[in-house]
Amino acid sequence: MEKKIPLDDNDLLQIKMEAEVESFKITRIRLKEKEEVEDKVIKETPLTIFLNGEELVTLLCTPCQLIYLAIGFLAGEGFIKKKEDIKDISLDQERGIIKVEVEDSLELVKKSFAKRMITSGCGKGTIFYSINDVLGSSIIQSKMKLHYSEVLNLMREFQNSSLLFKKTGGVHSCALCQDGKILKFQEDLGRHNALDKVLGECFWEGVFTLDKLILTSGRITSEILLKVAKWEIPMIISHGAPTDLAIKLAEKLGLTLVGFVRGEKMNIYTYEERILI
Amino acid sequence: MEKKIPLDDNDLLQIKMEAEVESFKITRIRLKEKEEVEDKVIKETPLTIFLNGEELVTLLCTPCQLIYLAIGFLAGEGFIKKKEDIKDISLDQERGIIKVEVEDSLELVKKSFAKRMITSGCGKGTIFYSINDVLGSSIIQSKMKLHYSEVLNLMREFQNSSLLFKKTGGVHSCALCQDGKILKFQEDLGRHNALDKVLGECFWEGVFTLDKLILTSGRITSEILLKVAKWEIPMIISHGAPTDLAIKLAEKLGLTLVGFVRGEKMNIYTYEERILI
Repeated sequence: MEKKIPLDDNDLLQIKMEAEVESFKITRIRLKEKEEVEDKVIKETPLTIFLNGEELVTLLCTPCQLIYLAIGFLAGEGFIKKKEDIKDISLDQERGIIKVEVEDSLELVKKSFAKRMITSGCGKGTIFYSINDVLGSSIIQSKMKLHYSEVLNLMREFQNSSLLFKKTGGVHSCALCQDGKILKFQEDLGRHNALDKVLGECFWEGVFTLDKLILTSGRITSEILLKVAKWEIPMIISHGAPTDLAIKLAEKLGLTLVGFVRGEKMNIYTYEERILI
Repeated sequence: MEKKIPLDDNDLLQIKMEAEVESFKITRIRLKEKEEVEDKVIKETPLTIFLNGEELVTLLCTPCQLIYLAIGFLAGEGFIKKKEDIKDISLDQERGIIKVEVEDSLELVKKSFAKRMITSGCGKGTIFYSINDVLGSSIIQSKMKLHYSEVLNLMREFQNSSLLFKKTGGVHSCALCQDGKILKFQEDLGRHNALDKVLGECFWEGVFTLDKLILTSGRITSEILLKVAKWEIPMIISHGAPTDLAIKLAEKLGLTLVGFVRGEKMNIYTYEERILI
């Protein structure tokens, strides 16, 4: 059933979505014995985005916060610049379709997106056109400072926040933070999707992002780094590893990249002066 | 520099590639102190595949075993059915380009690939056309049996095999196994790529896969499951979690899906009769 999304609703978190988790009867081997148990598994569903009536992209994702996912994706790709660009949104969750109507002056963006998608594989192909876009922009000049103990505290709180991970062991989380507090928190089976959901929520609410930072449970690859850089967010912190390309981009674009935040330790790859001790 | 790949060489593992790891000077915080240390980071580079002169796709990957990656990708997408379909391969690693010349009777496949890529996002969009392809084929009828202790032993050996993971903490591994032995082992920053490298190596050497199984370090999503099912491999085993869609596809296609193999435990999601106790 197609449901129209009220554009003046500032909090879409309340829109009821289908469950993110499904129960299966499985066989568990433990203590050398087979037993039949109930197990909770993360859901994976397709969401096809139609933009002004044309099929644009299908994301495989966890079926929660789908509107923020679509909005975050569209904003990240340059299809929308501000909330007023959106004229209409409707979601048909059973069929996995979201239709977004925007100001129709986007032919250039569409062409460049099509080009990117043709060179896309494992969803990572969008990046090399994007690098040129982003490198054109100026270096992030943020005076943000953070004590390392705040990084550790944030990571602990972040890891305790993922109820879906505790249930299923199969999701990534992403959060937007400021002053030692988690402001936005989203989950998805894909690390790109979880980030797009956070950024989509920020876009929807008009959140100022230049004084915030991003926490992610996933590895930091070039695509993740570029998504964050496009929003001029000066810091990204992960439990996991970065790639060499992500580090080089962070260096060029002015982001502090922190990885392997585990226990009392962390690695600061770029702009370490923003982390105080 | 473009290098022609000898098609009659049965072991491409010897072809020299660039290093998979790069060293960075980073700041580490440990015991409440900052110190400057050398750290090894996994490399991420683009590989653009040209098929019969046309740009097909760009994969972001770790720069090792790139020929197997390209071959595994092309075979998985249906562009090549047997090694004899390949007329010529050349790799230019500095520029990240691999050119593959194949029998030119693939217009249908190309059209369907283009369609998939337009609906592709986070590299996962290829799947929903593929599901129909795969579901058209028959259920895997394998009599493979494996003792659960062999699963545990394989997973232990598998986890000890990844030198790149030990160095960088930033890669996925994938292996093809039979009779408790690891026959093929590949690594990449992407879990799809690691699997494509294993399947590409099998394709190149004409390995019979119906009596083998796949081990992966990554989560089992629908795309991973479908890649394995296309090769009629009857079992996939992971250290991580599956999604509901992967389980449902495994059930339909006749694969045994085992997840969360950790310590002495494992979860068997489908066709548990292939795991003995």
